[in-house]
Amino acid sequence: MNNEQEAASGRRGRSKQGGAASRRAARTAAVHTSLPVLQRNLPLMEILSPESLEIVEANAEILLQEIGIEFRDEEALAIWKDAGADVQGSRVRFEKGMCRQFCQTLPSEFEQFARNRERNVIIGGKRTVFAPVYGPPFYRDFESGRRYATIEDFQNLVKLAYMLPALHHSGGTVCEPVDVPVNKRHLDMVYSHLRYSDKPIMGSVTAPERAQDTVDMLKIAFGEEFVDQNACSISLINANSPMVFDDTMLGALKVYARNNQACIVSPFIIAGAMSPVTPLGTMTQALAEALAGLAFTQLLRPGCPMVFGTFAASMSMQTGAPTFGTPEPAMVLLGMGQLARRLGVPFRSGGGLCASKTPDAQAAYETMNTLYPAVFGGVNFMLHAAGWLEGGLVSSPEKMILDADNLHMLQILQGGAATDENAQAMSGIREIEPGAHFLGTAHTQANFETAFYKSTYADSNSFEQWEAEGSREAFARANDIFKKMMATYQAPSIDPAIDEALRAFVDQKKGAEPDMNY
Amino acid sequence: MNNEQEAASGRRGRSKQGGAASRRAARTAAVHTSLPVLQRNLPLMEILSPESLEIVEANAEILLQEIGIEFRDEEALAIWKDAGADVQGSRVRFEKGMCRQFCQTLPSEFEQFARNRERNVIIGGKRTVFAPVYGPPFYRDFESGRRYATIEDFQNLVKLAYMLPALHHSGGTVCEPVDVPVNKRHLDMVYSHLRYSDKPIMGSVTAPERAQDTVDMLKIAFGEEFVDQNACSISLINANSPMVFDDTMLGALKVYARNNQACIVSPFIIAGAMSPVTPLGTMTQALAEALAGLAFTQLLRPGCPMVFGTFAASMSMQTGAPTFGTPEPAMVLLGMGQLARRLGVPFRSGGGLCASKTPDAQAAYETMNTLYPAVFGGVNFMLHAAGWLEGGLVSSPEKMILDADNLHMLQILQGGAATDENAQAMSGIREIEPGAHFLGTAHTQANFETAFYKSTYADSNSFEQWEAEGSREAFARANDIFKKMMATYQAPSIDPAIDEALRAFVDQKKGAEPDMNY
Repeated sequence: MNNEQEAASGRRGRSKQGGAASRRAARTAAVHTSLPVLQRNLPLMEILSPESLEIVEANAEILLQEIGIEFRDEEALAIWKDAGADVQGSRVRFEKGMCRQFCQTLPSEFEQFARNRERNVIIGGKRTVFAPVYGPPFYRDFESGRRYATIEDFQNLVKLAYMLPALHHSGGTVCEPVDVPVNKRHLDMVYSHLRYSDKPIMGSVTAPERAQDTVDMLKIAFGEEFVDQNACSISLINANSPMVFDDTMLGALKVYARNNQACIVSPFIIAGAMSPVTPLGTMTQALAEALAGLAFTQLLRPGCPMVFGTFAASMSMQTGAPTFGTPEPAMVLLGMGQLARRLGVPFRSGGGLCASKTPDAQAAYETMNTLYPAVFGGVNFMLHAAGWLEGGLVSSPEKMILDADNLHMLQILQGGAATDENAQAMSGIREIEPGAHFLGTAHTQANFETAFYKSTYADSNSFEQWEAEGSREAFARANDIFKKMMATYQAPSIDPAIDEALRAFVDQKKGAEPDMNY
Repeated sequence: MNNEQEAASGRRGRSKQGGAASRRAARTAAVHTSLPVLQRNLPLMEILSPESLEIVEANAEILLQEIGIEFRDEEALAIWKDAGADVQGSRVRFEKGMCRQFCQTLPSEFEQFARNRERNVIIGGKRTVFAPVYGPPFYRDFESGRRYATIEDFQNLVKLAYMLPALHHSGGTVCEPVDVPVNKRHLDMVYSHLRYSDKPIMGSVTAPERAQDTVDMLKIAFGEEFVDQNACSISLINANSPMVFDDTMLGALKVYARNNQACIVSPFIIAGAMSPVTPLGTMTQALAEALAGLAFTQLLRPGCPMVFGTFAASMSMQTGAPTFGTPEPAMVLLGMGQLARRLGVPFRSGGGLCASKTPDAQAAYETMNTLYPAVFGGVNFMLHAAGWLEGGLVSSPEKMILDADNLHMLQILQGGAATDENAQAMSGIREIEPGAHFLGTAHTQANFETAFYKSTYADSNSFEQWEAEGSREAFARANDIFKKMMATYQAPSIDPAIDEALRAFVDQKKGAEPDMNY
């Protein structure tokens, strides 16, 4: 096991840290256990031949040359002009290979630091980091139904993600706390992640000054110089497909890149509306958009860590509604993974995506139709891995619990099968005669406890027992688990001085301007 | 496209047939369309290295040599003795490599004939055949709840499987019609498959004479000589793990093998009870059992078509209940697929397995945790692909509909992404400007209809519309589809003379003995 593997498996940490760091680590010791980042041992699922990948790459270069990308930000246009691109109005066109050339300084993998160093994650290579749902304005749970989300819901979802071992990351906007004014929301969100979890976090992107507030809060939590030298956040920069980066996204991207903080540069695409209706056409456009966005970050600060993102959904051609779990976006995901690996940049896609309104069978089927391609297609950072409902409009604690249970199983599967002497079990086979059973064998007894994954929510009892317990389906049972988890939640420790400084920052910022809802 | 591919894709048929056959085909013309057998274009999911596979193979040989397998049938023991095996009592031990040697005459793939030749399936190679659930004594639908299954339920499930395009096969005991006496049930079941479907079917295995009845009915439907020369049925022969084949199973197996009818020789294993608790130990035992069973068939009739089967579940170590959708049986499935391919024999495993009592989120998650490994692990014949609930105790039409929709999508995904000029969509990309949308482009318009898979059951409407329609979850909506399908079902045509002969056979057999319930 090399250093990287150690870090990824969560085994690095205190032992390599000096006195102050060690004391700090002791103060932030984990209350709840967490899985190390998923390490992929099974082969990749790939869909395109090398020849087809070259076609997509060549077509993306044609797009960048002929049509170009709009950067709706004066400074960005000036930077591109200086870098030698063809800038006309807000349109930037790129010589063949130019974007790819600038992307050469992107790290192939990087470490994101968590407040608790044992929960640091390495993003890239054969690893997958699972992060919760991002962005829903609504919240649904089994008891209260569907409603606008609040800061209390937000904090509960942060606590839940903290407690679920398969979520390696605390995420960002796990729901929109719409009871907090828009211009102050990010302060409460970043504070909540830092206070109620100790896993790695995401930053605010809704305005450059909110991105700056995020960076300032990270500096309080991690130290000023430390933040400049290390990724202590990862933030989501969506392109406005087709072929546009708007000023809001570019403003936030500039803040993060200049502060050496990671971003995911993600074409967000409903295919057929925001890209061509075919998988290969969507891949071509998404590649071009990602290349231009990623290249831009390297003009701001060469070597700053970035992730190549793709989010693609299909749509109902009858109603225009986005659809999830269909095979065509899975094809896009698999192809984009191959393209990202050829570029040598960490890849983001996937998630427990679904159109279903509740965590029913539709939700689960659709979710798995993205999770499998994502986990086997080599996604390195998986946003929306748990808790997503209704096309991303709704966050659900029960869905988060159900998804996380399945993420845990996917992680075990990707670990591969043990092949040592105990796993071969010849001693067990020799213990019994044909027609006998293995339950009492020494081999079964010795391996009993750890042999099979124990689901947190699945009911494998008899029908009669299930009926006696009220014939409750998975959604209802997951609500029991949610309530029990909230009742037993214990916050991770935090240095009281840091906590006080964070609170003071939030209060000062909140007091400095009136409430606004844009 | 070679002949095999043509046959597998359903494009062979009438054009290659002579006059009589052509008239016959016209009489059995399909009312409902059916997908051709799945052709795998994506790479295989594999879990074991060649070195680990060799270890399992070597350990299986040790098991066959040292412990051996019980064959609880006098004739089988005599056959093994003649073949040179070491027979002591009912225990048969095999020299190293002996079983594998007898397996050399097994076909690597074979065609199973359907009453409608357009629905013939080739079993083996890069193909997967989806067949419905097999064996449940209970039936559950959304309206009537859970109860013992009847012959009417059986026929409805046959009709449903006939109408669902992703089910390539009519299956066998889609539920146990417990309102029909045990000793006459098989007659109604085989007749129902032949009458209400024209897809390939499975035969009865509950007694040698019932297997013979199946063969006799096939001879009526297909012609006597034709049946002797072609697989017109496939039947499920489970080993009594660990390491036993009982007289019932061997009795049926002998009938089918001698009549050149295909069987699946399947260790059916709850790991930890019926095999060692580790994946590698389970693979070792399952390989040994399958090798012995398959070798035996080749002593009966060399070259008769057989399938290497594996069914493995995990168990709750607390309650002893089987559990489904956990990662460990998926590992067994993937490894067994590799072992079957090394032996060069078609492979059966997988299915939409779950422990859940209803088609809820648990059912769907668990199902997908087996379907993905099965479809990507190279399963050639997938029993239980749709309709399974509650650990196989319950058949459900709604679950069949939900599963079949997802099988359809897996089949599309396995088809791979088109890469031709239309798929590259450069004309579409050139039609628009950055920030515009693709809906009105000529490229989108031209590809609109076929671009994305349209789910039969998934609701991607707005929350408001879904709520206005009664906030119904997937289980309830699938019941609507079931009722609509039953209302529009049209039986495939059948030669009236054949139908009459089949009915006469059933009546004669039923009249010849009293009702018995064993």
